[in-house]
Amino acid sequence: MRTVRYELHYQDPNSQARLGRLISPHGAAETPAFMPVGTGGSVKAMLPDEVAATGAQIILGNTFHLMHRPGHQLVAGQGGLHTFMGWDHTILTDSGGFQVFSLAELAKITEEGVRFKSPYDGSRQDLTPERSIEVQEALGTDIAMAFDECPPSDKPKDYVARSMDRTTRWLDRCLAARRNPERTSLFGIVQGGLHEDLRRAHAETLIERDLDGYAVGGVAIGESKENMARVVSFTTPLLPVDRPRYLMGVGLPEDLVRAVMAGIDMFDCVVPTRNARTGRLFTWQGLRVVKHARYKEDRRPIDETCGCPTCARFSRAYLRHLWLTNEILVHRLTTMHNLWFFQELMRRIRAGVREGTLQNLLAEVIPLTTLAED
Amino acid sequence: MRTVRYELHYQDPNSQARLGRLISPHGAAETPAFMPVGTGGSVKAMLPDEVAATGAQIILGNTFHLMHRPGHQLVAGQGGLHTFMGWDHTILTDSGGFQVFSLAELAKITEEGVRFKSPYDGSRQDLTPERSIEVQEALGTDIAMAFDECPPSDKPKDYVARSMDRTTRWLDRCLAARRNPERTSLFGIVQGGLHEDLRRAHAETLIERDLDGYAVGGVAIGESKENMARVVSFTTPLLPVDRPRYLMGVGLPEDLVRAVMAGIDMFDCVVPTRNARTGRLFTWQGLRVVKHARYKEDRRPIDETCGCPTCARFSRAYLRHLWLTNEILVHRLTTMHNLWFFQELMRRIRAGVREGTLQNLLAEVIPLTTLAED
Repeated sequence: MRTVRYELHYQDPNSQARLGRLISPHGAAETPAFMPVGTGGSVKAMLPDEVAATGAQIILGNTFHLMHRPGHQLVAGQGGLHTFMGWDHTILTDSGGFQVFSLAELAKITEEGVRFKSPYDGSRQDLTPERSIEVQEALGTDIAMAFDECPPSDKPKDYVARSMDRTTRWLDRCLAARRNPERTSLFGIVQGGLHEDLRRAHAETLIERDLDGYAVGGVAIGESKENMARVVSFTTPLLPVDRPRYLMGVGLPEDLVRAVMAGIDMFDCVVPTRNARTGRLFTWQGLRVVKHARYKEDRRPIDETCGCPTCARFSRAYLRHLWLTNEILVHRLTTMHNLWFFQELMRRIRAGVREGTLQNLLAEVIPLTTLAED
Repeated sequence: MRTVRYELHYQDPNSQARLGRLISPHGAAETPAFMPVGTGGSVKAMLPDEVAATGAQIILGNTFHLMHRPGHQLVAGQGGLHTFMGWDHTILTDSGGFQVFSLAELAKITEEGVRFKSPYDGSRQDLTPERSIEVQEALGTDIAMAFDECPPSDKPKDYVARSMDRTTRWLDRCLAARRNPERTSLFGIVQGGLHEDLRRAHAETLIERDLDGYAVGGVAIGESKENMARVVSFTTPLLPVDRPRYLMGVGLPEDLVRAVMAGIDMFDCVVPTRNARTGRLFTWQGLRVVKHARYKEDRRPIDETCGCPTCARFSRAYLRHLWLTNEILVHRLTTMHNLWFFQELMRRIRAGVREGTLQNLLAEVIPLTTLAED
């Protein structure tokens, strides 16, 4: 019995898109699924029940942040991350590797792992496959991600190939380091940059390990939409149909629809939450910037077609007022709306797969990252 | 028919404490009542439904803040403060006078009113009885407070007397300025400093105006507990039994119990909300400072006897973690808890009046402003 299972319910005959369910010890999630990011033990500004009310059934936690604050041993002593933060549904944690490269100074990669200077206390620390698994298991996550290297795609092919091989060795060390596989499953990450032959080779290597799920790595950050779509399109058919496929760190509405058409089942991204805290709201009419003067006396909700608690009760004028007076409440209201928008988008994506109308949805969402007209 | 009515339900035979109901066009509030402060159109960090869930049935809005941001005319155009902020229950607004004295620079008092330099834009502005009423009626408040002068109690008696007489003239100008008395009632404020004869004279003057309610002014800020209790004790018996009595800006749990014993029905104070945002939590075991190291691994709720949503789900260790990582969520959780504590305190106060056990409750709450022992 797998710790985390994937049930394939429907395969679109005209694209690689599919419908399914991801089932963990903490419950099921309809796929394609979008995971809100609960960085350091909370989805910023939100209560767990509010996150669940948006329709989210799985969230992501950041291993790097949690291992430093409050510390994974402390979380373990509190009964694990689910209990600590009050989230009863599925949790996936990243490996910590991405934050090491993006946040830590002086990160240095060796065969052993990554040595870095902690941005929290300046101390010299090591993150290795073994330590990443130790931390993720201590957190009690449902889905741990393998510790990988994610080289910039503009590196020479031979560098990408060597890095990919190291990622495989690190994966094997992750597998060997597991102490609690019945509680925490492990997803592998297919690397290989923009090179189809490398991606194929790496996918085959990973499939031999018979993992519970597979991520397509190294395409989300700093990569063009075309390259992202191309890599995903040729990588997902290499993966087993009975395992979930996860595209890390993606993305904008358009990216999500395209990736689903290319066969992806799972996403995470800070786009809805971070934009909310900078006052940028997603709507089905386009982006709205909450502080804009045009909303000064606008009694309409942010999105008249939206069913979220923010739009049910509060006007654009009120949100703008809260924003201009720095009221904490505005971050709640904007985050609630954006998370709701993304879950509504996933509902429409799943309906689009079922009804064969994803192309129409794609055309509808492409303009949504430009400003709304009224 | 009065716009705001008070029903006296029970008079404690052994003190001046009483039970009743305050009934406004937006509903009833059990008294003695504590009003959370919704400064600039929100009770900081909270949704209106959450405030109501604590048991609060009436909140206070700050005229001075709202007239500057977003502006009372804008709020009026949005359908009034209730609609704008999504609070369906009773609202009381202050006159703006207190903030003029405490926040504005160069405030200068004349017979006409107060001239001050706006802390928002540096402009020179006037707040007069007429303007205060205009603003409060534009906000659509249920209870407007008369614009008064509140002199420091260490001023000479003749200054206090002259100021009191001006407050009476300002009250008459407030009454004359009303345009919407069916929607917005007006409470007067008894001044007179620490002088029983002045208080008596002023109370009689106000009672002649047959107002919907009366506040005991000039005792909350910078005044000793003894002076506060003494002034309230000799002032409330001067007021009509069929009108609510309001002690502005009070206070700590002990102050509330004492004032109820002296016959007060209504309170407002930033104590629960402001302390929450500085990480100081009221419990029935005493104050807890959320960041204290002793809570690092403490799995217990803030108060094991508390029924609030924070205590139902989250541990001291989790709140401390959120505090140390500057998560927005912590302000919600601490504010929810403190508001809940104050409404629970009011429930116990009302039970104490009914059962004749206020003295026991007073003894119980006096130690609550010192740190909890575990």
